[in-house]
Amino acid sequence: MSELRYDPLQRRWVIIASERQRRPDDFINPYKVTSSPEKCPFCYGNEDKTPPEIYAVRRDNSSPDTPGWRVRVTKNKYPALSLGDEEHNLQPYGVYGRSEGLGTHEVIIEGPDHELGMADFPEDLTIDILKTYRKRLVELRNDERLKYILIFKNHGSIAGASLFHPHSQIIATPIIPRTVQIELLATRGFYGERRNCLICEMIKQEQDEKVRTIYDDGTIIAFNTYASRFPFELFIAPIKHQAYFHKENNTTLEKLALCLGNVLKRLKKALDDPPFNYILHTSPNKEAGPAYPGFWNTLDDDFHWHIEIIPRLVKTAGFEWGSGLHINPMLPEKAAEFLRETEI
Amino acid sequence: MSELRYDPLQRRWVIIASERQRRPDDFINPYKVTSSPEKCPFCYGNEDKTPPEIYAVRRDNSSPDTPGWRVRVTKNKYPALSLGDEEHNLQPYGVYGRSEGLGTHEVIIEGPDHELGMADFPEDLTIDILKTYRKRLVELRNDERLKYILIFKNHGSIAGASLFHPHSQIIATPIIPRTVQIELLATRGFYGERRNCLICEMIKQEQDEKVRTIYDDGTIIAFNTYASRFPFELFIAPIKHQAYFHKENNTTLEKLALCLGNVLKRLKKALDDPPFNYILHTSPNKEAGPAYPGFWNTLDDDFHWHIEIIPRLVKTAGFEWGSGLHINPMLPEKAAEFLRETEI
Repeated sequence: MSELRYDPLQRRWVIIASERQRRPDDFINPYKVTSSPEKCPFCYGNEDKTPPEIYAVRRDNSSPDTPGWRVRVTKNKYPALSLGDEEHNLQPYGVYGRSEGLGTHEVIIEGPDHELGMADFPEDLTIDILKTYRKRLVELRNDERLKYILIFKNHGSIAGASLFHPHSQIIATPIIPRTVQIELLATRGFYGERRNCLICEMIKQEQDEKVRTIYDDGTIIAFNTYASRFPFELFIAPIKHQAYFHKENNTTLEKLALCLGNVLKRLKKALDDPPFNYILHTSPNKEAGPAYPGFWNTLDDDFHWHIEIIPRLVKTAGFEWGSGLHINPMLPEKAAEFLRETEI
Repeated sequence: MSELRYDPLQRRWVIIASERQRRPDDFINPYKVTSSPEKCPFCYGNEDKTPPEIYAVRRDNSSPDTPGWRVRVTKNKYPALSLGDEEHNLQPYGVYGRSEGLGTHEVIIEGPDHELGMADFPEDLTIDILKTYRKRLVELRNDERLKYILIFKNHGSIAGASLFHPHSQIIATPIIPRTVQIELLATRGFYGERRNCLICEMIKQEQDEKVRTIYDDGTIIAFNTYASRFPFELFIAPIKHQAYFHKENNTTLEKLALCLGNVLKRLKKALDDPPFNYILHTSPNKEAGPAYPGFWNTLDDDFHWHIEIIPRLVKTAGFEWGSGLHINPMLPEKAAEFLRETEI
């Protein structure tokens, strides 16, 4: 089993994934790309090359772990975390902290087509994927040991995708990761002072200024963030306040699918199919207890789910890793103008 | 002039570097490497290709901006931040925040040899470099607008080095970057509870356990961190408590040079000259006012300078960017064993 270790200096946890353990000299040539599409474990007919399916969207009465699925969820074959029956047990380790690497790591295979990226998915496939996100969030929230469920996508090798076939991933952890904690503290602090949601206020400001907005259909908004760390960094959120992604109805998910299609097409066309990561931040598992020391967890009123898209166009160097302060050579207003003017 | 923008959700600043502004389509092919050693602006005879020198170590009475230097400091030709006579003026911008991009961005050219990396520097060159760090820290701390001074090094293209010739950089900012703030909060919190320095306690634990230690000469210790985010991540610090790098005497800097040479040689030999970043975290500029809201700045007792070395052997993907929670496939104890056993 892997291990969670706590760094008291940076106040962050790290997953030491011994199940993915490599020998020291495996790192000597790290940027080799290993992809052989003909043996793709995510293509029809290769269902036995993944762990058994946990959930699938099937409209043809086909059996589990056979072709016919539209979206398919399995455990990650090399999971960073895994879940048995044990309780979660955080222990001090001198000044540090540790626990077993309890959690889950799942893969969401996004359609049988090996080549097509989300920018070009038929709309109903993206809708099925978003409904699958919702389904897995609802299911995983039943396990009170899991304090946070993070859904993300790596597109392109530079963005960390090790398999070409389009897929998203879910990692659920027994701790709230630091980046999410900081957002929770910020929105809770803002709510305490102003009795309003920080992200609702951000959206209002973006709608007033319009200069960073790429897409706004009255339900979903997409904009380049004011303090973008990376060129073309995007923020997508529902305009109406909602803390929890899994509480959104079908209509909102359908509108979100349209927005994702529109925005990802613009990115693809404008920047020649750039590598990117996207990340869903939703409110943590309320039933799982306090989100961070000194606070009980979020209210429904003080968080607002959103998706961040980070195109991976620039390298991250010592300054960024050492400071958390990013240098972005691209004005967000200019990035937005460029994306808006891209014909799709 | 560039701009500092504040993200209230992630509680972090970003530098929007308009002086480095690129057109949107400059990002289309971002991983092209552009290096032409014969025209290297850091080699002897090309001193006019950099801004004028701010400081240099010269032992031959040679004139500024001519050959003969051993270490040479100039402004970065494409600075992320710049400094005039203006006051620093943080302003709200709706829910966000902003200020002019006030600060400095300097380059420390590490010897005239274009090829040699720090792993192979003669010991007295590394000592001159470390003394130059100290000199610049003392000098820049006189400007009370600068709240933090970060010194770092990018080795190899993957680690963000755009010029091959060995060099470090200094970026001084009118705000305390988030990663440093978190360390300051952690050490202050620990000190408040235990009246002891967190980093002194970490060092004591590493000396007791020995399993992660690579180097310990009684003055300087180097170890793989217990909660390493990255394979082979290293932490180097003085064993005797000292908050400020610039207060160290020559003897300590000489010992640090020996440690850096030893550790970087091991990394180079064990991992075939891997790309890496190193970052110096020293206590912030006390004269510059509070380090973070709600606290006056550090005492001399609650911070402890250190150098982090991050070999860039694995890619950072959506999960890490979205959570701040890293998945490290390499046991730190195993990494340490491998480095200790490497013959140098």
